[in-house]
Amino acid sequence: MSREIIIAGAQMGPIARDESRASAVARMVALLDRAARLGAQMVVFPELALTTFFPRWFMADQQEIDIFFETAMPNDAVAPLFARARALGIAFTFGFAEKRIADGRVRRFNTSIMVDTAGEVVAHYRKIHLPGHAEHEPWRAFQHLEKRYFEPGEAFFETVPLLGGRFSMAICNDRRWPETYREMALRGAEVATIGYNTPLHYAQMPDHDHLQSFHNHLCMQAGAYQNGMWVVGVGKTGVEEGCALLGQSCIVAPTGEIVAMAGTVGDEVIVAVCDLDRCAEIREHVFNFARNRRPAMYPLLSAT
Amino acid sequence: MSREIIIAGAQMGPIARDESRASAVARMVALLDRAARLGAQMVVFPELALTTFFPRWFMADQQEIDIFFETAMPNDAVAPLFARARALGIAFTFGFAEKRIADGRVRRFNTSIMVDTAGEVVAHYRKIHLPGHAEHEPWRAFQHLEKRYFEPGEAFFETVPLLGGRFSMAICNDRRWPETYREMALRGAEVATIGYNTPLHYAQMPDHDHLQSFHNHLCMQAGAYQNGMWVVGVGKTGVEEGCALLGQSCIVAPTGEIVAMAGTVGDEVIVAVCDLDRCAEIREHVFNFARNRRPAMYPLLSAT
Repeated sequence: MSREIIIAGAQMGPIARDESRASAVARMVALLDRAARLGAQMVVFPELALTTFFPRWFMADQQEIDIFFETAMPNDAVAPLFARARALGIAFTFGFAEKRIADGRVRRFNTSIMVDTAGEVVAHYRKIHLPGHAEHEPWRAFQHLEKRYFEPGEAFFETVPLLGGRFSMAICNDRRWPETYREMALRGAEVATIGYNTPLHYAQMPDHDHLQSFHNHLCMQAGAYQNGMWVVGVGKTGVEEGCALLGQSCIVAPTGEIVAMAGTVGDEVIVAVCDLDRCAEIREHVFNFARNRRPAMYPLLSAT
Repeated sequence: MSREIIIAGAQMGPIARDESRASAVARMVALLDRAARLGAQMVVFPELALTTFFPRWFMADQQEIDIFFETAMPNDAVAPLFARARALGIAFTFGFAEKRIADGRVRRFNTSIMVDTAGEVVAHYRKIHLPGHAEHEPWRAFQHLEKRYFEPGEAFFETVPLLGGRFSMAICNDRRWPETYREMALRGAEVATIGYNTPLHYAQMPDHDHLQSFHNHLCMQAGAYQNGMWVVGVGKTGVEEGCALLGQSCIVAPTGEIVAMAGTVGDEVIVAVCDLDRCAEIREHVFNFARNRRPAMYPLLSAT
């Protein structure tokens, strides 16, 4: 099997609060078709790809909140996407709000799934680094209530064999943390897929708003280079319900170089030929972990 | 005490193999004077600042190797630098090859020291991440025998109180590892000082040579932003004994922005007003470690 994989990022423009799952999925199918014409074997969609980014609103009524959650995956709403991808033989990943029964109780996560070329869900990832806050903070222009609406995930960054390579998923704020990429790489991941919804405005540090895109790329480029890994970061972007979201979805080579980047703030496909053998260039030399890491010198990194 | 500190980076051009310590130190004093005129309170000099970067040569004779090592610090050779800095009331840090008796045997380290405004050596750091190789590899255009000539340091990244802030030292290859900055930050460091000697040519990955400066900045900028820390990276640069070394020494703000950068490949002073209170902008919000890190999810980072 070739170690070159053609990976697409399917950036999505805003999803309105009243936009149906059917409409969002139809857009995803259109992006999938576009990616297929570009030869893509894997398509990466954003975080919470099926709905608007609802944590921007405070809602007290759990029923109102639950409108944004999926209770089964796949479900009828996403069936057209699964069917089309299976017909095309394309693997894909996307994010959604997940409501599930586990440990005898209802639990809610910010989740992404990896789906193989046969349309089977082969992995779940539940966001570990939830950003934002848990209480209503009316002084903000908009809320960021992920710590209220979701529980943090409790599983490590799993490595998923797919298309002859090893993939691992992260979601949005996870990408800012160097720990994310390192844990993935130590588990053998060669490609990190990362969906995001990132407001351009950060309420506590408005003087940093102009740096959002720089920080987005900085973290993913450093994560790629320092781990010899392909990184595919894909956003939901544009002005969604009055909130401007970061675009510039990109594919980063194991050298840290951005090799594909979105140039719009709407639905757009980017694509790159990702040679997974290039990971070894980095990992066998400067970032040869076994030879050059000094874990005994980093006792605090894993200290709880 | 103000939390604004004026920090200078004193980049150095090449040091010839036959250049005396006296000559190198005279250049350092001249740089110190230049930094003083720019108001500097702290000056950061490169790794192995007193000699040429001798690990580029294979030497079998330990006496020949030991010519490049200091057996006491301070010593007569560096006395003019210590005296001038004390007279000016400027703190400083530089790197040197250290030969010392410890645990009943002769040991050699790639070391840097921090010297306070009274001229007292207040901290030693011995390089943890030694790059390169231990055996002679004649196929290389030049050697990189740090693993032969030095032992790796065995102490964590210490945090040193100085000038009202908290400083930590790293050396060259340490700066490529996100673990370095994170361990420093978890120990409270607000400024990382990093000296380097980085050949533009990387023998095992010559196709990456054009990326050296990008990688240099990428790692330090990510380390600064992801830890809300000032990073001062200062190289020995220019063509030293036929080997081209990376320049672009820089000072990076806690936002990850480069706020000062060298524009030559020779002796040059860069300077920035570093407000240590800006670290909190990052550390109290997006990188609030206590609130947002998930160390239980990173078991492999410290695993030995």
